[in-house]
Amino acid sequence: MQAYVLTAQGLRFDPDYPNPHLRDGEVPVRVLTAGICETDLQLIKGYMGFQGVLGHEFVGIAEDGPYAGKRVVGEINCSCHRCDYCNAGLANHCPHRSVLGILDHDGVFAETVNVPQANLHLVPDNVSDDEAVFTEPLAAAFQIPAQLDLSKFHSAIVLGDGRLGNLCAQVITQAGCDVTVIGKHAEKLRVIDELGIPTAPLSSVELERFADLVVDCTGSPTGLTTAYQLVRPRGTIVLKTTVAGDAGPTLAPVVIDEITVIGSRCGPFDTALKALESNSIHVTPLISARFALQEIERALTAARTAPNLKVLLDVSS
Amino acid sequence: MQAYVLTAQGLRFDPDYPNPHLRDGEVPVRVLTAGICETDLQLIKGYMGFQGVLGHEFVGIAEDGPYAGKRVVGEINCSCHRCDYCNAGLANHCPHRSVLGILDHDGVFAETVNVPQANLHLVPDNVSDDEAVFTEPLAAAFQIPAQLDLSKFHSAIVLGDGRLGNLCAQVITQAGCDVTVIGKHAEKLRVIDELGIPTAPLSSVELERFADLVVDCTGSPTGLTTAYQLVRPRGTIVLKTTVAGDAGPTLAPVVIDEITVIGSRCGPFDTALKALESNSIHVTPLISARFALQEIERALTAARTAPNLKVLLDVSS
Repeated sequence: MQAYVLTAQGLRFDPDYPNPHLRDGEVPVRVLTAGICETDLQLIKGYMGFQGVLGHEFVGIAEDGPYAGKRVVGEINCSCHRCDYCNAGLANHCPHRSVLGILDHDGVFAETVNVPQANLHLVPDNVSDDEAVFTEPLAAAFQIPAQLDLSKFHSAIVLGDGRLGNLCAQVITQAGCDVTVIGKHAEKLRVIDELGIPTAPLSSVELERFADLVVDCTGSPTGLTTAYQLVRPRGTIVLKTTVAGDAGPTLAPVVIDEITVIGSRCGPFDTALKALESNSIHVTPLISARFALQEIERALTAARTAPNLKVLLDVSS
Repeated sequence: MQAYVLTAQGLRFDPDYPNPHLRDGEVPVRVLTAGICETDLQLIKGYMGFQGVLGHEFVGIAEDGPYAGKRVVGEINCSCHRCDYCNAGLANHCPHRSVLGILDHDGVFAETVNVPQANLHLVPDNVSDDEAVFTEPLAAAFQIPAQLDLSKFHSAIVLGDGRLGNLCAQVITQAGCDVTVIGKHAEKLRVIDELGIPTAPLSSVELERFADLVVDCTGSPTGLTTAYQLVRPRGTIVLKTTVAGDAGPTLAPVVIDEITVIGSRCGPFDTALKALESNSIHVTPLISARFALQEIERALTAARTAPNLKVLLDVSS
């Protein structure tokens, strides 16, 4: 099959990549549309040392199992479901897990991806392919209300106007918080403005420590330092993005101001799909460009270019 | 009066330090006994740039006001009680505050200290001076159950066998957690062992991520990195100590393992005094040495010396 494979020599197109062996409990899924995520761009730079088919955001057609012939999306963590972590409800943290397109498991920038049946979710009929491909990043945004009772937070700031910042801002606004998104890119901020969420360019923000909640979606080493200057004492900072490197900013403000810092990663697919089904979260305004799978180099360049938000890959139809 | 004053040239004894002017709402307190804290040692090294009378752990006799002639201890944050933070219940985070012996306010290594009446607490009759001087650090340990519902945590690790680690371990054990203290000093670990709390030397610990809660009392830049290797995914790390410098360890494990990191500082004096009154926390085993105020240089050397825990200063009697 056609696939884009990350190797030690970089990303290469393989017109005849062998469809990998199905692992226990997996079913093949024919990929319809895939999305390019910041993590993909980091993996290409060497993050995690991943080798294999890239990509983890997708909608496809199950080719076997109870959902055969139906449209599906898939959770990316392939857990053992047997260890102490899995038994304790921490399957997404299973130390034996593989992760689609990220860790020890081929991903979705290919004609077919093998996914554990247990990871698949049916896509509601009124959710389009273009919307469904946002299920994974939208679920990551819904991990915030899964971890925090947002009714306890009044004022919130989302740092970062990119793909994830946009989705987090929508989710937190829907939960009733008074959200402002702070970012660096006028075009990306305008997309958020048009969704009815207040925004401010970072350069014009007065750094005052009043926010109950700051969500760092910057992927930047300065994100946390900026968050320190915006969160109130005893406030909460949610970290949605990792930053490469062994060092980070000082944690002294965390102690002095008694801040709570919460790391947040993958989230609930069912909640994300319900939000797409009810049209309560708007994802299609984030689609900036689309390319065929064979045009992935152009697609990656577009995904790296500032005004663009989500770039989609049309794999098959 | 006699006082030990931190100046730009270092710590010096002043036999005739002018008793500072009482600020609004303050009463003079004759210091009986003072304790040396790790923060004092850091301040001498230049932390916070503090200049003035050093020291913030004390028991004394109020010389005026409703508690005149009675034994008192005092909270160290002198807040304005007028600003938005104070009105929101965040008086310990008042941006206009001074802090006894730490920030813009003379401290307790002197014959007399001026303390806001609102900060004073009466010492119960059955609590000795030597016990009462531990109220401030013990309150800091009780800030952990004030911030966290410890009934939700089963296994806990306290990193650090020093003064604060000892008190935190006792408080968390009392709250029902299954606590192990990990440290580097056999003599200090033995004091904790003798209180009935399991301990382990850091060098022999198998770093497994299973603890629901890790409390970092190390004051060391490697404390958080060790905590990452001990806390379970979605577990909680409490930071009780600050580390000098602009950088810290990477926060990537916080995101990947969805860890909650909570900074924790000063705590409730009333809870600490009740624990001392009911003898449910044992502080006198921590007293390693005592000196007269005039012997402060020897006392500071003792406080810096590994096997010693709390070093007391007898100021007057």
